[in-house]
Amino acid sequence: MTIATTSDTPVVANLADMANAIRVLAMDAVEKAASGHPGMPMGMADVATVLFSRFLKFDPAEPEWPDRDRFVLSAGHGSMLLYALLHLTGYPGMTAAELARFRQWGALTAGHPEYGHTPGVETTTGPLGAGIATAVGMALAEEMQRARFGRGFADHHTYVIAGDGCLMEGISHEAISLAGHLRLSRLIVLFDDNGISIDGAVTLSCSDDQLARFRASNWSVEAIDGHDLAAIEAALVRARAGDRPSLIACRTVIGRGAPTKAGSAATHGAPLGAEEIAATREAFGWQAPPFVVPDHIKAAWAQVGRRGQAARAAWGRRLSSAPEAQRHAFLDSLSPLVPQAAFEALHLLRASFIAAGTKIATRQASQRAIAALLPVMPTLAGGSADLTHSNLTQGHGQPAVQPRDFAGSYIHFGIREHAMVSALNGMALHGGFVPYGGTFLVFADYCRPAIRLAALMGLRVILVMTHDSIGLGEDGPTHQPVEHLAAYRAIPNLLVLRPADAAETAECWAIALAEERRPSLLALSRQALPCLPHDPALSKAARGAYVLREAAGDRQLTLMASGSEVAIVLEAADALAAEGLRVAVVSIPCFERFAEQPAEYRAEVLGNAPRIGVEAAIESVEWRRLLGDGGIFIGMTSFGASAPAGVLYQEFGITAGAVIAAARRLVGGA
Amino acid sequence: MTIATTSDTPVVANLADMANAIRVLAMDAVEKAASGHPGMPMGMADVATVLFSRFLKFDPAEPEWPDRDRFVLSAGHGSMLLYALLHLTGYPGMTAAELARFRQWGALTAGHPEYGHTPGVETTTGPLGAGIATAVGMALAEEMQRARFGRGFADHHTYVIAGDGCLMEGISHEAISLAGHLRLSRLIVLFDDNGISIDGAVTLSCSDDQLARFRASNWSVEAIDGHDLAAIEAALVRARAGDRPSLIACRTVIGRGAPTKAGSAATHGAPLGAEEIAATREAFGWQAPPFVVPDHIKAAWAQVGRRGQAARAAWGRRLSSAPEAQRHAFLDSLSPLVPQAAFEALHLLRASFIAAGTKIATRQASQRAIAALLPVMPTLAGGSADLTHSNLTQGHGQPAVQPRDFAGSYIHFGIREHAMVSALNGMALHGGFVPYGGTFLVFADYCRPAIRLAALMGLRVILVMTHDSIGLGEDGPTHQPVEHLAAYRAIPNLLVLRPADAAETAECWAIALAEERRPSLLALSRQALPCLPHDPALSKAARGAYVLREAAGDRQLTLMASGSEVAIVLEAADALAAEGLRVAVVSIPCFERFAEQPAEYRAEVLGNAPRIGVEAAIESVEWRRLLGDGGIFIGMTSFGASAPAGVLYQEFGITAGAVIAAARRLVGGA
Repeated sequence: MTIATTSDTPVVANLADMANAIRVLAMDAVEKAASGHPGMPMGMADVATVLFSRFLKFDPAEPEWPDRDRFVLSAGHGSMLLYALLHLTGYPGMTAAELARFRQWGALTAGHPEYGHTPGVETTTGPLGAGIATAVGMALAEEMQRARFGRGFADHHTYVIAGDGCLMEGISHEAISLAGHLRLSRLIVLFDDNGISIDGAVTLSCSDDQLARFRASNWSVEAIDGHDLAAIEAALVRARAGDRPSLIACRTVIGRGAPTKAGSAATHGAPLGAEEIAATREAFGWQAPPFVVPDHIKAAWAQVGRRGQAARAAWGRRLSSAPEAQRHAFLDSLSPLVPQAAFEALHLLRASFIAAGTKIATRQASQRAIAALLPVMPTLAGGSADLTHSNLTQGHGQPAVQPRDFAGSYIHFGIREHAMVSALNGMALHGGFVPYGGTFLVFADYCRPAIRLAALMGLRVILVMTHDSIGLGEDGPTHQPVEHLAAYRAIPNLLVLRPADAAETAECWAIALAEERRPSLLALSRQALPCLPHDPALSKAARGAYVLREAAGDRQLTLMASGSEVAIVLEAADALAAEGLRVAVVSIPCFERFAEQPAEYRAEVLGNAPRIGVEAAIESVEWRRLLGDGGIFIGMTSFGASAPAGVLYQEFGITAGAVIAAARRLVGGA
Repeated sequence: MTIATTSDTPVVANLADMANAIRVLAMDAVEKAASGHPGMPMGMADVATVLFSRFLKFDPAEPEWPDRDRFVLSAGHGSMLLYALLHLTGYPGMTAAELARFRQWGALTAGHPEYGHTPGVETTTGPLGAGIATAVGMALAEEMQRARFGRGFADHHTYVIAGDGCLMEGISHEAISLAGHLRLSRLIVLFDDNGISIDGAVTLSCSDDQLARFRASNWSVEAIDGHDLAAIEAALVRARAGDRPSLIACRTVIGRGAPTKAGSAATHGAPLGAEEIAATREAFGWQAPPFVVPDHIKAAWAQVGRRGQAARAAWGRRLSSAPEAQRHAFLDSLSPLVPQAAFEALHLLRASFIAAGTKIATRQASQRAIAALLPVMPTLAGGSADLTHSNLTQGHGQPAVQPRDFAGSYIHFGIREHAMVSALNGMALHGGFVPYGGTFLVFADYCRPAIRLAALMGLRVILVMTHDSIGLGEDGPTHQPVEHLAAYRAIPNLLVLRPADAAETAECWAIALAEERRPSLLALSRQALPCLPHDPALSKAARGAYVLREAAGDRQLTLMASGSEVAIVLEAADALAAEGLRVAVVSIPCFERFAEQPAEYRAEVLGNAPRIGVEAAIESVEWRRLLGDGGIFIGMTSFGASAPAGVLYQEFGITAGAVIAAARRLVGGA
């Protein structure tokens, strides 16, 4: 087989040699780093070579070209496969020197592929199964984009390389089930079926019939020899023509080419060693030193790197010649900037809540925010993990995505929290959408690895987590988050927003939308919360914490709370003020934002008086920092229990009475 | 169909009426609580009635009888199904009055079934999919127990009722794949195939062919009409006779019997309302008031409750007449007390580490601990989620469990973290084993919901979480836990143990084994750690924190650290002492334990001098509490990066030099 493009003089190159270039680069980089995974790149080099040279639509000159195919290395430990491909096809910065710096500080060649760090890496992978589930979101976003703008603007595929590990992880079930249900026909998974996992043969722990399993979830499936170049090509042709997602199980030999280690777990996660590398070179007839690729192979790969230029140019011409409104709508959808009208809608909503003194649950206020946004923000799309009527994530009349019908903007994710958030990540990575998704806060733990990846990648993903405390009542401790606020605040680069009433909820939605490089987790109440005494003219939640009510004179006490507990401290403040105490009340919808404020503002909010903090949750470090040694925290110290919410607040001692008692301990009093 | 037992006069009772008793109790309890889920109990009442009256081996007089069948209500929201069954068959305390207190403070009838709270509840369920995965561990423990002690002692089944939610969750894939691989033929899952989820029809979000899917994982499968009593019985007979786990898909009508609401999502999670309840009563010809069961039906159910007496008596006779050694071994295996020899083995191991000045990774020390325990602790059993050679969870020569061969004590869990910890929970619940399991600490998040359940249930489950910081190096931020120590410390009733060297690792294993009612998470280093200056005679880690080296005279500074950072503060202490500063060094292997010490001990350890705390992680509240307002924490404030470990410690500023600089800021100095 030869590789040729129309725009160049054909270069006669042996695809097998091109694949061996990947193998040699991978084994040499791992050897030099004395760390890494040569087995997978060597095993999947043939598949990747056929995919990149014959099918993948991409242009290294413009890694962000919106209509490129997405390539997801779900088996992220095989990062050298991807880095070798990026190098060989000419991605910016991916020089031989960077390959030689594999896994070193600051190198583009991190241990696992990192989105935002290395051009050409479509998503951060490594945590197994994450890639395939993220790819589902990319494929979904492509379908939704095509449904909105047409094939002229969006006409690409999502390819995934996944290993046994990805398919054994539970998230893979959620992902393939969702993709099969929606019939995401542009999603093609290449399964590196090498029969080896870290412990040894896959048969040590798994006997699944993967083809039957994917078929049961409505996928097209076939198995091929992953080293038969013609078979790979034929299977990809069939997969692209199908009307449902496709699994191609590629039977491969891990570490293919290493004379004594190929086929064994020894190649999975450790350097091959100098001797084996020399023998592999000999077997390949490979004379070149490490990180040098013979010219004819280099030239062939360079041609592969130029394959997409014409398609990108044609796409650009279609965009330029499109009707102005359509072109603008398309480009606006890709802009990180949320339209000003969205913020205006939220501002109006806030004002209406304050004017009406609206007493509703913050999850209800969130639904009103979604409803207000949808008409002015066509990129807003999201759903719930089968808790639509509890999370209140669907705007009135918001049409749902259906199998093969992607015009809607609401997604019934099913009871698949992990795949949901991974898909939201994929939608954010793909571009064109600001995705959101809901479940109960306690079940954020089911998708915690995906939330972590959203934070690590810096994606604007909005998590609508309702039933945020013991305030959910009777469902009991399995459903009551107590440690979750602390546990999610601990994740770097994630905003945890816990609004105290309807007005703050509208503000928190605005904060989340304005955060272009951070995910936001909205912790929302099941129960109704009274309207707080806001300044209608001044929106303050964006500062993270603010004085909701200043003391009448020099402060003797500062009461602080978040979410549903702000009303409790207000009640206590009233009682204490009636006793003549000068009490200020601070609402803290977002600790992360408050920590970023200037020191003067922080000092002004915190004051110098003793402090009491109230949150129906395990104390988080952010509280202890604000309260200081002398401050008192009133919250949870154990799991919750099953009973009506009011009873639980009493039994666990999170009441105005408890606040008043603590205040008396701190500052004396009546 | 009639129900009869050999020991009683047969009572002619209509199974359909018996099932209606469940339905009426469920709908009435939910109505009274004004909260709960009537649909599932009403839909699965027929299946449950056949299971309990014809098959389930149990004796309400002895809910903990070791050879009972286990019944797991994976669809835990249908808790009233279980409470009705416990009431009708005569479990202690489950009175009509308790049913009438459904979902109230302190009632046995919590919103979701809670293990340890309600006799007869085998495991806490509610988080979907948890039950089915926990049941895999129970079925595995039964097989392992039978392999050790024979059928005379262990001869029971594990039955699960699971709904669409359980099967859509990713954890279900891990669980069924593992069960099918191991051929756990005593595991029978009754799938409540009612076609309804919370959002509406299951077809809104799922098109899986569940039978094909389970078949792909080596299960026996069949589908039946879940309201055809004879079909249910026949299917259970076949399932029990099979040589692999069985799925019986029971096509049911959710809310069966409710004239206008049956078959709709409206019955799932809300009371039926007075009118519908009256109509349902009429349809059933049910005259009795709420929580009263007509005598003939009551009597029939009471007979069901006595069905197991003879079997239990026979089992008791077998136990009494067994050879003394075998009887003792069996009873010892069920005792919560770990044999003293285990603690002695760990004590000797600790001494040998100290004597030799052993410098190894704490994960290696943990492997030595496992190896030392295995010969003296036959109940120790565990494995790894395909990281055996990284987690070092397998003792030398420790035989592995194989499909259909359960004599071994090592389990290749596969790349299934969530099912692994759920299975560990199931093994602990079943009894007979002290289970442990390993993965990388960062991937604890994949099994976090199961860890939470272990803590909520108070199970002795030992989590061997290795590669516990940026110290793992090149794999990069996807593999480097930074927020995990804080996030796991936030879970109530979970011990987080982070030993500082080999000797402390042996001590931490002893702490974990001695904790009968708490899970322990061991956070272990990838990298070698030097042997600390321990007192060979005195083991102090059990106090949570201790003075590793006291200052020479009145303390001017206290340096505190956990795990791999203790060596760093020791190095800093040496340098500062050389400058004449009086510095104490405190090692903190376990914050939870330290918080439980008497105030005098805590004061003695903490001293009055300024403090610096060092941990290669995001600050947790436990640190801030110990450090106080004036203390300095040196740790992580962001995700990690890909580079060799030594480089990362330098770049992130977690070094002796940084400690020395902080010390100078705190106390002045050279």
